[in-house]
Amino acid sequence: MGSKYKSLKEECYEANMELNALGLVIYTFGNVSAVDRGNSVFAIKPSGVPYETLKPEDIVIVDYDNQVVEGKLRPSSDTKTHSYLYKNWENIGGVAHTHAMYSVSWAQAQLDIPIFGTTHADHLTHDIPCAPPMADELIQGNYEHNTGIQILDCFKERGLDYNEVEMILIGNHGPFAWGKNAAKAVYNTKVLETVAQMAYLTLQINPDAPRLKESLIKKHYERKHGKNAYYGQ
Amino acid sequence: MGSKYKSLKEECYEANMELNALGLVIYTFGNVSAVDRGNSVFAIKPSGVPYETLKPEDIVIVDYDNQVVEGKLRPSSDTKTHSYLYKNWENIGGVAHTHAMYSVSWAQAQLDIPIFGTTHADHLTHDIPCAPPMADELIQGNYEHNTGIQILDCFKERGLDYNEVEMILIGNHGPFAWGKNAAKAVYNTKVLETVAQMAYLTLQINPDAPRLKESLIKKHYERKHGKNAYYGQ
Amino acid sequence: MGSKYKSLKEECYEANMELNALGLVIYTFGNVSAVDRGNSVFAIKPSGVPYETLKPEDIVIVDYDNQVVEGKLRPSSDTKTHSYLYKNWENIGGVAHTHAMYSVSWAQAQLDIPIFGTTHADHLTHDIPCAPPMADELIQGNYEHNTGIQILDCFKERGLDYNEVEMILIGNHGPFAWGKNAAKAVYNTKVLETVAQMAYLTLQINPDAPRLKESLIKKHYERKHGKNAYYGQ
Amino acid sequence: MGSKYKSLKEECYEANMELNALGLVIYTFGNVSAVDRGNSVFAIKPSGVPYETLKPEDIVIVDYDNQVVEGKLRPSSDTKTHSYLYKNWENIGGVAHTHAMYSVSWAQAQLDIPIFGTTHADHLTHDIPCAPPMADELIQGNYEHNTGIQILDCFKERGLDYNEVEMILIGNHGPFAWGKNAAKAVYNTKVLETVAQMAYLTLQINPDAPRLKESLIKKHYERKHGKNAYYGQ
Repeated sequence: MGSKYKSLKEECYEANMELNALGLVIYTFGNVSAVDRGNSVFAIKPSGVPYETLKPEDIVIVDYDNQVVEGKLRPSSDTKTHSYLYKNWENIGGVAHTHAMYSVSWAQAQLDIPIFGTTHADHLTHDIPCAPPMADELIQGNYEHNTGIQILDCFKERGLDYNEVEMILIGNHGPFAWGKNAAKAVYNTKVLETVAQMAYLTLQINPDAPRLKESLIKKHYERKHGKNAYYGQ
Repeated sequence: MGSKYKSLKEECYEANMELNALGLVIYTFGNVSAVDRGNSVFAIKPSGVPYETLKPEDIVIVDYDNQVVEGKLRPSSDTKTHSYLYKNWENIGGVAHTHAMYSVSWAQAQLDIPIFGTTHADHLTHDIPCAPPMADELIQGNYEHNTGIQILDCFKERGLDYNEVEMILIGNHGPFAWGKNAAKAVYNTKVLETVAQMAYLTLQINPDAPRLKESLIKKHYERKHGKNAYYGQ
Repeated sequence: MGSKYKSLKEECYEANMELNALGLVIYTFGNVSAVDRGNSVFAIKPSGVPYETLKPEDIVIVDYDNQVVEGKLRPSSDTKTHSYLYKNWENIGGVAHTHAMYSVSWAQAQLDIPIFGTTHADHLTHDIPCAPPMADELIQGNYEHNTGIQILDCFKERGLDYNEVEMILIGNHGPFAWGKNAAKAVYNTKVLETVAQMAYLTLQINPDAPRLKESLIKKHYERKHGKNAYYGQ
Repeated sequence: MGSKYKSLKEECYEANMELNALGLVIYTFGNVSAVDRGNSVFAIKPSGVPYETLKPEDIVIVDYDNQVVEGKLRPSSDTKTHSYLYKNWENIGGVAHTHAMYSVSWAQAQLDIPIFGTTHADHLTHDIPCAPPMADELIQGNYEHNTGIQILDCFKERGLDYNEVEMILIGNHGPFAWGKNAAKAVYNTKVLETVAQMAYLTLQINPDAPRLKESLIKKHYERKHGKNAYYGQ
């Protein structure tokens, strides 16, 4: 008899394989989850399984308290970060975490990614935040749960809205991204990686490159996401 | 019954798919158009449709006043920039716009790309111009139309001829390129991206790298484009 | 009649081909070996044979004194380095050597790769060591054997354990990596190359980027390799 | 009836296609030739024909005075440089010219590529020379012929032997490479491009990176090319 979570697992599987196809992960360096709000569970990649051998039936179903509801494998070691985000941010449907090259490099540099151009402004109006590394006692404690707290604290402190800013860097670690579903979380991971590379190159070419001016930030964001948006179908 | 614009749509579709094959776009980050001078219309990519799912019949036919002549989808949000160029530059047959990595990085750096070598001089004799970002009132107004004005103003101010210089960077945004047809606009986009990467690397290796000397600029441009050209068949 | 080393040769062949598939080698610029501890021999790539034409039966079986036990071709010119490591480090099952781009560039820069992030700490808790170039008399002597000595001397001097730190750079030359088998040696070569690129980019973005703090180094290494590890299946 | 140069054309065609497969050319930015010493002719790519559509029968046969011996198409615009090299360097069997990314960037920087590591020393014992741009009167004269003179002058001035140093950069232009046949010329073009990227990265990581010491240069070159060479089969 089939699982009631079959389509959720498939959505999660497809999103994970897309991470791999887009060159955002090697080996086991990443994971995507997809939530089922009606049943208060989410599907997530099993821990340490390479993308080359991953199958839809390997995907694990977990509840918001990190208990396995269905699946034979252990879920991603980052599961508690995913659950914390789902519990606190009710509008998101998918979360992705990777060690993508340029995103990680900015995270290791412990710097926000400045908004330099319209590619960035097409997606968000703020610099991409880099949360500082956690305090030692939080690292030694419930680490992955505390990573979720760290993300929310960073958003609170800076007055950011997770509905607009759908990505963050964790200092010394790497990117998390989210969105209305798992595919959108993967899309945002790719956008972040692209913008991270562009910002790196921009500063190599001109260390004094100016931030994008407010009128252009607003114009590009609004034409795609504003109430009079005219981008797309 | 078939459309009278069937072959125009196919030319436009092929050029858009070539952008993707050449690694110049991800997702929906670019668009190419192809003009039909006899009928005073052009074919352009629909807005927000990913290259993976784009079909020839999705291409939209638009007139020079941006009215849709044929097609069920909304044309690219950059349509008014394309139409402005077609209306004002009678010799061009295709226009391409992308967010290609190295071209965008120079645009974000707000710097012209200096002519450093023969790869550049094989295609044009000037630095590749980077137009400054527009004034705020132009951004808040008819933005995409004004982007066209910005391009022409930059060419007028610098005394450039669009028949020779077939590419430009818009400050903080990205590249536009054109040519006798859509395929040539895509070719010029790839040449610009290649030259942009070479110039970036050149300055990393030697920040004092000299501009190419006039005799070499002239020699390489003339052997390919001069009246005694001997390059090609 | 088949060779008693058939499966050993195949393990070695597959690992060599994986180096190529992962973009870690061009032409003949690398080699992997796999040991058979029971028979005190190892299988290694033949010298100067391109990956494009390599076949499992080309793999050469050599003993710890570098004598060919089976095979018609001459073994890799680096064979004596491999045998020295097998003889002295009883727990390793595979060794890989390449001229991968970013690893070689750090080796040519004669610098250790600093531990900047969790991607690094997921695999080892120390900076990746770069051994200095050998003294002239050792180079003029039994060069490849002395390369093995150089590796062990570097580990002794710095108090490193080859069971934890499974990779090294040889100054001005390139990377060696090892592991419980040939596939793991290749995996470590890819991890080293990835971490090398991340560290390079990190320093380009922020020349003052801080080293990863001890609590995070410990947390990430322990969750994957500690006695209470909870990463993987 | 078949051409007596059929196999020469095929050798030349295969080598040109290999340039493309190795990512060393885009569009028409490169050419390889192969010589037939017995008949005092060489086969070369036709001018301006893209690699995507190139066929073996398009290859042009030319004599050392640049006269077309067989073929319907115009030979490469760089033909006179190739013929000059064949006429003056009797041991070479193939010549390749490209606009490969990192090689061109060093050429535009007008700098020799320093010998930083064993990857370089495995192939030659000198820095890779960058010839200065030609005097204006030579550029305005018989340009491609004079490019050949420029290459030989650079070798003479520096006391280099074309049998050992099989590559050069032409300042502000790009690389030429040669070898015993066309395939070796392509191989050397790829080695040059790889070494160029490694040297660029090395200096980015450590601007004070030291040149490889003489004992290592000699050891690596001799083990592959010396009279007691033990690399390869």
